Amino acid sequence: MKRLALAVVLALALPATGLADEPTVVKLRDRAMAGDSIAWPFVSELTTRFGPRPAGSASEAAAAAWAAKELKRLGFSNVRVEPFPLVGWIRGEEEAVLLADRPQPLVAAALGGSPPTPAGGVEGEVVVFASLEELKAAPAGSLAGRIAMVDGRTVRTQSGQGYGAAGAARAWGPSEAAKKGAVAYLVRSIGTSTHRFAHTGSTRYVDGKVAIPAFALSNADADQIGRLAALGERPRVRLSSTASYAPNTRSQHVIAEVRGREKPDEIVLAAAHLDSWDQGTGAIDDAAGVAIIAAAAKLIADLPQRPRRTVRIVFYGAEEVTQPHASDVGGRAYSEPRAGEIGRHVLAGESDFGAGRVFALALPPKAAEAPFGREALRLLGPIGVIPSQRSPGRGGVDIAPLASAGVPVFALEQDGTDYFDFHHTADDTLDKIDRQALDQNVAAWATLLWLAADSEVDFRALAAS
Amino acid sequence: MKRLALAVVLALALPATGLADEPTVVKLRDRAMAGDSIAWPFVSELTTRFGPRPAGSASEAAAAAWAAKELKRLGFSNVRVEPFPLVGWIRGEEEAVLLADRPQPLVAAALGGSPPTPAGGVEGEVVVFASLEELKAAPAGSLAGRIAMVDGRTVRTQSGQGYGAAGAARAWGPSEAAKKGAVAYLVRSIGTSTHRFAHTGSTRYVDGKVAIPAFALSNADADQIGRLAALGERPRVRLSSTASYAPNTRSQHVIAEVRGREKPDEIVLAAAHLDSWDQGTGAIDDAAGVAIIAAAAKLIADLPQRPRRTVRIVFYGAEEVTQPHASDVGGRAYSEPRAGEIGRHVLAGESDFGAGRVFALALPPKAAEAPFGREALRLLGPIGVIPSQRSPGRGGVDIAPLASAGVPVFALEQDGTDYFDFHHTADDTLDKIDRQALDQNVAAWATLLWLAADSEVDFRALAAS
Repeated sequence: MKRLALAVVLALALPATGLADEPTVVKLRDRAMAGDSIAWPFVSELTTRFGPRPAGSASEAAAAAWAAKELKRLGFSNVRVEPFPLVGWIRGEEEAVLLADRPQPLVAAALGGSPPTPAGGVEGEVVVFASLEELKAAPAGSLAGRIAMVDGRTVRTQSGQGYGAAGAARAWGPSEAAKKGAVAYLVRSIGTSTHRFAHTGSTRYVDGKVAIPAFALSNADADQIGRLAALGERPRVRLSSTASYAPNTRSQHVIAEVRGREKPDEIVLAAAHLDSWDQGTGAIDDAAGVAIIAAAAKLIADLPQRPRRTVRIVFYGAEEVTQPHASDVGGRAYSEPRAGEIGRHVLAGESDFGAGRVFALALPPKAAEAPFGREALRLLGPIGVIPSQRSPGRGGVDIAPLASAGVPVFALEQDGTDYFDFHHTADDTLDKIDRQALDQNVAAWATLLWLAADSEVDFRALAAS
Repeated sequence: MKRLALAVVLALALPATGLADEPTVVKLRDRAMAGDSIAWPFVSELTTRFGPRPAGSASEAAAAAWAAKELKRLGFSNVRVEPFPLVGWIRGEEEAVLLADRPQPLVAAALGGSPPTPAGGVEGEVVVFASLEELKAAPAGSLAGRIAMVDGRTVRTQSGQGYGAAGAARAWGPSEAAKKGAVAYLVRSIGTSTHRFAHTGSTRYVDGKVAIPAFALSNADADQIGRLAALGERPRVRLSSTASYAPNTRSQHVIAEVRGREKPDEIVLAAAHLDSWDQGTGAIDDAAGVAIIAAAAKLIADLPQRPRRTVRIVFYGAEEVTQPHASDVGGRAYSEPRAGEIGRHVLAGESDFGAGRVFALALPPKAAEAPFGREALRLLGPIGVIPSQRSPGRGGVDIAPLASAGVPVFALEQDGTDYFDFHHTADDTLDKIDRQALDQNVAAWATLLWLAADSEVDFRALAAS
């Protein structure tokens, strides 16, 4: 009773604002915070039934079909599965062995897009470089017959910027190593896990291909090679992979809407991706995001009155894929066929950073200062969200093509301190999701999507510099 | 300066005792605490050069040869490698697949001693039991053509007792499942890791064999099967293993001594084991123990005067192995040929619980009350060691046969809160060892070994009830 009385006092104490429907959005937010949403069952069933969902795989397609069925059952409008062509990559069998006093198994994973080794594998002395820059500076031909290894560490940060800083070694290492004659490439996992997992992810195609077989080593295994060298040995490694390509496969987006009651053609878009890497079950990357946006939109759909504008959720396919000459396959497959409809997208955001709590809101610069931004932060403040110090930029990989085409972008910035402990590894499983943090994400997304969709704010005008 | 002055005051303030050589043992202890010992380089080089060291393997033998060479180089006396025959077990290739909507790879590991599956594997519906007792209660024939799974969880404790409580499901599950007609057996990993590792370890031979192929699943994968069943599915799993036996191999002990200056035939024995499971590099289990006892003995050897009695260190082989009708192969291979010398072993202890800090000393009951026990605790107290609440029992697996033959036993009890996060998994690697905790172990062992070896205490008299 005491608790209820206090809640009433707090409600009365809220400052008066211009927001007519404040009780609606407060209820929406607090229902999500209380865990009364589809987020947990959705993420649980998706990761349990389908496990890994590599781009272009039968598993990704089955997950998309299931998701579409679920969204229809939940009452969403205009639910559709939108296929697009893709060159898939299939890991196959792989093995890495350290040839020390006795052969030792290494925990390694081929990078996405890496070609197979010749049958029987490749073997060579490992030449260790502290950074990609050191590898670039190696003399031409100096790695002939050898295996190049870049041994940089990923710095743990809340924002995830450590991943960006370390990632160049994964992206560009194989082509640089090949230029110097290396027969294969190793990279210390781009990630912060202190456990024995190898962190996969796409490496870049250069001139239409990945030049040499490329693998990530777990942190512990990279340490082992470094220590062996420090003992005066010249470590050799044998690598084998039967990776292959599926040139004529396809991926697909799943799209669903809560139609706007006044301006249904104006779209507030929420993005996440359904594909995942193949080692884990893609729980934090990105079944979590899919569940967050689905749950937020469903809470909005459950309101007595729909918002003015349409809320569109898009579960992108093939977010993880780097194709030759395309770094954002899934994103472009959504935006390119919609060149004529870009103007109808009034605002877009992407949930692709696990289920860590949202701690900051980034809006187009003028929107943050406008009444919309102040309202949003007043409503998000009680669940732990403060103004961002950063610009939302182009959002994530999926919505970047929309952003480049002029769609204003917001970001609900998440605490990613432990995100790269799990991301792209076999350890990305459902148990890594904190349910309370997941609920807080749903609350933040429901609040912001509702505010944007029920408003008449011209975000393009506020995004213009 | 202030700090030094304080130290002098503290030294003067120490209560007078019967221990003539107190400055010697304080110096010994504090040198170890300061990290001035061979512990870290020893454990680092052992795990780096040889990686996994399965009992009976070439790697275990090479590690033993290296260790003996090192111990000689370090000046130990009577260094020898003592071989004994063994039936080895070799994991081979293995695969576990969950047959859900789409096949999902499972993280699983065959249990030590498990027979191979038929070529192509075995496949069956999984029947989940909450405990070994539930499996035992299943009707005869009820598991025909199916796969039994025991799904108990290991409780995290400081003492490690949670492992003992959970372990019966690993030891006896395969034979119980086979009795009911199961074609294979699964057990939720006996361990506390929240990461995706399968925990191996020996399962028991019954009537000279392990009846059916048996695997541990990682916690996350056991969860996945349970959730799929909760969704109304009947999970099926396909298991394959090419495990094999090496009937005519051998293991070996490595033995070295600091010879006593007065009573060299009286032996204070320190045990650890050199073999390891095959997935990790056996760092916490038990390269840590090997390094701790080697470093402690080396510090004693470095003193101006050797202790009265001999300190013998034994790096046991094949501690991890359960043979038909023998649960302590390595231990018996040491004790049985020494039936006539058991009386010369005045005290024995074993370091086989990783490198977690020592927090308690367990002595034979009367020794704890005797001046020896009070002295020991006075000297160990400053490094965080208190009296144990338990009896040292029969020590660990290696020294149990000595204890059974009447050798008094002590235990330096370690904090094992996180030990079963790593133990018997691929994640048991050097980076899991905390150097400061390792040093504290060396300090505790050096102190206790020196006190026991330099004394004339009759521990047998104090152990008699």
